[in-house]
Amino acid sequence: MTVRVGVIGAGMIGQDHIRRLTEVVTGARISAVTDIDAERAAEVAARVGAAALPTGAELIASPDVDAVLVTSWGPTHAEHVLNAIAAGKPVFCEKPLATTAEDCLRIVDAERAHGRRLVQVGFMRRFDPGYRQMKDVLSSGALGTPLIVHCAHRNPTVPDAYTSPMAAQDTAVHEIDVLRWLLDDEIVSAQVVTPRATSKRFEHLKDPQIMVFETANGVRIDLEVFVNCQYGYDIQCEVVGEDGLVRLPTPAAVAVRTAGRHSTAVPQDWKARFAEAFDTEFREWIDAVAAGAEPTGPSAWDGYAATVITDAAVRSLESDGTVVTADMKPRPAFYGGTA
Amino acid sequence: MTVRVGVIGAGMIGQDHIRRLTEVVTGARISAVTDIDAERAAEVAARVGAAALPTGAELIASPDVDAVLVTSWGPTHAEHVLNAIAAGKPVFCEKPLATTAEDCLRIVDAERAHGRRLVQVGFMRRFDPGYRQMKDVLSSGALGTPLIVHCAHRNPTVPDAYTSPMAAQDTAVHEIDVLRWLLDDEIVSAQVVTPRATSKRFEHLKDPQIMVFETANGVRIDLEVFVNCQYGYDIQCEVVGEDGLVRLPTPAAVAVRTAGRHSTAVPQDWKARFAEAFDTEFREWIDAVAAGAEPTGPSAWDGYAATVITDAAVRSLESDGTVVTADMKPRPAFYGGTA
Amino acid sequence: MTVRVGVIGAGMIGQDHIRRLTEVVTGARISAVTDIDAERAAEVAARVGAAALPTGAELIASPDVDAVLVTSWGPTHAEHVLNAIAAGKPVFCEKPLATTAEDCLRIVDAERAHGRRLVQVGFMRRFDPGYRQMKDVLSSGALGTPLIVHCAHRNPTVPDAYTSPMAAQDTAVHEIDVLRWLLDDEIVSAQVVTPRATSKRFEHLKDPQIMVFETANGVRIDLEVFVNCQYGYDIQCEVVGEDGLVRLPTPAAVAVRTAGRHSTAVPQDWKARFAEAFDTEFREWIDAVAAGAEPTGPSAWDGYAATVITDAAVRSLESDGTVVTADMKPRPAFYGGTA
Amino acid sequence: MTVRVGVIGAGMIGQDHIRRLTEVVTGARISAVTDIDAERAAEVAARVGAAALPTGAELIASPDVDAVLVTSWGPTHAEHVLNAIAAGKPVFCEKPLATTAEDCLRIVDAERAHGRRLVQVGFMRRFDPGYRQMKDVLSSGALGTPLIVHCAHRNPTVPDAYTSPMAAQDTAVHEIDVLRWLLDDEIVSAQVVTPRATSKRFEHLKDPQIMVFETANGVRIDLEVFVNCQYGYDIQCEVVGEDGLVRLPTPAAVAVRTAGRHSTAVPQDWKARFAEAFDTEFREWIDAVAAGAEPTGPSAWDGYAATVITDAAVRSLESDGTVVTADMKPRPAFYGGTA
Repeated sequence: MTVRVGVIGAGMIGQDHIRRLTEVVTGARISAVTDIDAERAAEVAARVGAAALPTGAELIASPDVDAVLVTSWGPTHAEHVLNAIAAGKPVFCEKPLATTAEDCLRIVDAERAHGRRLVQVGFMRRFDPGYRQMKDVLSSGALGTPLIVHCAHRNPTVPDAYTSPMAAQDTAVHEIDVLRWLLDDEIVSAQVVTPRATSKRFEHLKDPQIMVFETANGVRIDLEVFVNCQYGYDIQCEVVGEDGLVRLPTPAAVAVRTAGRHSTAVPQDWKARFAEAFDTEFREWIDAVAAGAEPTGPSAWDGYAATVITDAAVRSLESDGTVVTADMKPRPAFYGGTA
Repeated sequence: MTVRVGVIGAGMIGQDHIRRLTEVVTGARISAVTDIDAERAAEVAARVGAAALPTGAELIASPDVDAVLVTSWGPTHAEHVLNAIAAGKPVFCEKPLATTAEDCLRIVDAERAHGRRLVQVGFMRRFDPGYRQMKDVLSSGALGTPLIVHCAHRNPTVPDAYTSPMAAQDTAVHEIDVLRWLLDDEIVSAQVVTPRATSKRFEHLKDPQIMVFETANGVRIDLEVFVNCQYGYDIQCEVVGEDGLVRLPTPAAVAVRTAGRHSTAVPQDWKARFAEAFDTEFREWIDAVAAGAEPTGPSAWDGYAATVITDAAVRSLESDGTVVTADMKPRPAFYGGTA
Repeated sequence: MTVRVGVIGAGMIGQDHIRRLTEVVTGARISAVTDIDAERAAEVAARVGAAALPTGAELIASPDVDAVLVTSWGPTHAEHVLNAIAAGKPVFCEKPLATTAEDCLRIVDAERAHGRRLVQVGFMRRFDPGYRQMKDVLSSGALGTPLIVHCAHRNPTVPDAYTSPMAAQDTAVHEIDVLRWLLDDEIVSAQVVTPRATSKRFEHLKDPQIMVFETANGVRIDLEVFVNCQYGYDIQCEVVGEDGLVRLPTPAAVAVRTAGRHSTAVPQDWKARFAEAFDTEFREWIDAVAAGAEPTGPSAWDGYAATVITDAAVRSLESDGTVVTADMKPRPAFYGGTA
Repeated sequence: MTVRVGVIGAGMIGQDHIRRLTEVVTGARISAVTDIDAERAAEVAARVGAAALPTGAELIASPDVDAVLVTSWGPTHAEHVLNAIAAGKPVFCEKPLATTAEDCLRIVDAERAHGRRLVQVGFMRRFDPGYRQMKDVLSSGALGTPLIVHCAHRNPTVPDAYTSPMAAQDTAVHEIDVLRWLLDDEIVSAQVVTPRATSKRFEHLKDPQIMVFETANGVRIDLEVFVNCQYGYDIQCEVVGEDGLVRLPTPAAVAVRTAGRHSTAVPQDWKARFAEAFDTEFREWIDAVAAGAEPTGPSAWDGYAATVITDAAVRSLESDGTVVTADMKPRPAFYGGTA
């Protein structure tokens, strides 16, 4: 069975996922597209032989749509996801699940009322082979109980529109999700401090930022977010356990020895760095939908948790580095697991 | 347009490619399957909703088959490829193109008579991202003219059925193809010498073997083939140019520090090591077929060259390490390029 | 001219330095030894043809002693160093310079009154080739202004006598010194937090500890101290600047590929890890003494600063992770530089 | 006891060893210097408080000379070494021991007649920590029987005076010695082939050269000698055994990430690359001499073997790559061991 996907939001990320579902991942086709810009919707839809529909609500209701992909503007996510749940259709929502914790909780409640999981949130790092290898090593018990995590998330540059709270909301949110999953542990507090700022930035931006998270089990996570590091897109993660440590690999790259240096290229682009993760994310999602199974990727609860923890980080940033407790509801048994 | 692929030979490698064309690569479906074992053909065909046909000839002739995939027993390759050319259908032939240089030449002649490329041979390394990065570096001119290549091709173990000539025919043939492409240069002689043999082998097998190839431009290639190295599947390649060198990366893997060692896992399996190369190989082939374009992967001429060079290596092995000239016809302009 | 060194304290570290000055470093000989255990002093002195003297004071006063090496019990350091200054003799004092900031200041004042530098403190990392390479890279300006430093200091295990404050006093003190020098910047505050403790420890010990230091220029340093990490002695240091980063190398070690792993050994022992640094430290000190020059290694002021910062770290540990300001006097021009 | 060393030959290498014995290694002093250029001898001798003597013979005979260091022009080595043996004095002779195999044998015979080892030849790689680690790994048996060795010896450039046979005589001779020791196995044949030459060379020079050696136990060694590789001084060595491999480390160096590259510096200079090996070489030699023990470094027999094997390599080079048997006498029991 080919899964017929309706796409809400045909901007850059929406088009990239359409390409992925059309050219890279088998078992799916795009049956409908909508966008706030009707002309763009029509153009993108035509390219892949899909219908251009006027609204998200109509797209979700369409009998030609088996599953919904939400890649519209963040503030509209909650409405589309709630509509999809109401229609009983699987929905993949790009991050964030919703822009407020309250809206995330409404989605969680709606999904629980529906009785089975319909929602997957677009945190792709869980699908990266490096993080998956880390998870395997940690699960094997070879390194004992995790105690500390050191991370760095560096981008070469960001545009002027990037603001200081986005370091948590747009950037660190990826580590927040993947570490909750990697450690199988919940983050209970956040602290954001700002060392000397780079002079290679826009005046308004605090960059770099150091974020510190503590988990329910007492693991301490430090994360350097440096979005104008100039040299490349560099993701580092090291988990230290009682008996040893495990470190995320950098992508394989040819080594060159010339002019007195032994060197390898640093990736410049998050899309290339996590291309395989994105592909696997959608492959597994389509497989689950095609099988009529619940999705196994990040859940609505994970989307809620990420928003609550991100909010705590932003409050810490805005209060000069105070430690802020994540104000999270108890985890419903419905979502299984620990974190 | 979905490319309808007919598969001749439903053994292990055939089934793996069927899985790939069904589950990994978009734009294709399996429309027909044949195998010397009719029962197996029926079973595999049923699994993917294809027709089971009694012979390769009938499969090639079928109007439901747009392109042919030959994964049958090596000695039957030539016949199927020639039939596909006669039918004017694109054909992807697993290595070897044919078991004799004469049969390879018959295919080359048939394809030239047909007037456009129909044949692609299954040398997958050209599609590996590491080799592609090497090619980019070499093409950039940053390292100057290539002078020397050092390679190693190591398998953890091989079964009893593996014989000494297979070190060239089945194992080194991958380096032979990828180096001709990487250097854009033709191999003109081969020499195979046998150092002290491992005691962890079957009595009949000369393992390891050192192969030395020389190219038309005077580049010297040494290749260690060691198919019972015990520790893993390990592919090494280093090209030394006038101004520096470039080295194939090993696959990215998490680093673990525990019990006094810093370590990473060595791959154990060629399928996993080159999984991405196989996927890309078929993705690009299907794209070319769907577009009605000539294939851009290894050609019938490359299949012929690999067979001639492999033959030279086996003759050298059988004559105690004499340098044997590759008895190759002049390259037809039809195939473009140099090697 | 051979420098005649008198050694106060013939315990393990004293004997190791005696070996170094006798067998490794040229230009010196041990002329006198004293120890609280007179028998041990006699035995060690006899081994190297030195005189065994009853007290530090007599040793310092001896006309056969050109320079003094203090390797006695920490609480006695101040007295011996002050005596050496009073005698106008160069003195190398193992860390700590003194056990209180007050005593350190008395030494600083005495040295300033003397009018030229006589004191060097035994912080050996400044002599390690890796840190020196880092200093060169940072000084070159290639990475721009430093913003953040990430460090780890891990020991395989420590004995029962190791207490929680020693993580700052005995362990982190090495990073405190080397980072002040590396960054040419002063540390102005310290914070020590304790994540989940390893269960592989003595009940009384908080291990690991995370220490955070801030410098006058706003650089933020995080340092993981984990003295029961089990797997080895592992020193990591990464400085992130506006334009890139530089990372301390791990010691060169042969790579082994066997049984499915590619691995290198992790050092187990700080003595071996910093053997070259210790040798260079004493070689440069003896050279300076022989030349009648002031020592160029860590000064009395550096010893004072390390004690003040260490005190701040211990106070933070004892007050549940409060940020504690380092209560340091203004740097006298006498000591030049910034930090 | 301080060993009084007389130095024959006060050129660049002689002066460097004088510096080492004076400033780096304890337990020695230079008591006499001679040189074909009497003025240079006087100047160098004055610098270290030694006597300048007119001839090697007089220096060897001097009662102020306990041990002799020969660093004069190669063709004079044999005479000085024979004189030292006649005088019963330990002698350290820079490579080559002698310029002909016949002269080497005369030294071997004289030393055997003397009845105990007096001669050490200046092959320093056996003292490099990386090779020593390799030796430990191989001796542990963890990798099983060695089968193959891959080496590279690359210099950034060489001066015009460097001729094609020097690739064996001056360059590869280091690998010849260290591999005989590492494998504890004798080299029995040599072959030198010349791939495409670099255009960045003097017309007269064949560069790079590939040398192939076979040992008595059937191990096959390939060695790339490339003395104008432009990018640096790069020494590679990998030993492949039945159960795995071990690889020589490159020197530890800080890693820098900037401008899109992750890189480390490649050494440019053999003196810096092997500085620690040279120091250890002389430290151990002086220790043995001071203890009245036989030297444990490369013996006169090793000097003979290196000359015979080097001769075979040069003959192969001059006969277009023929395999040339090393015409070596049987190893006298006097020298113990195997190779």
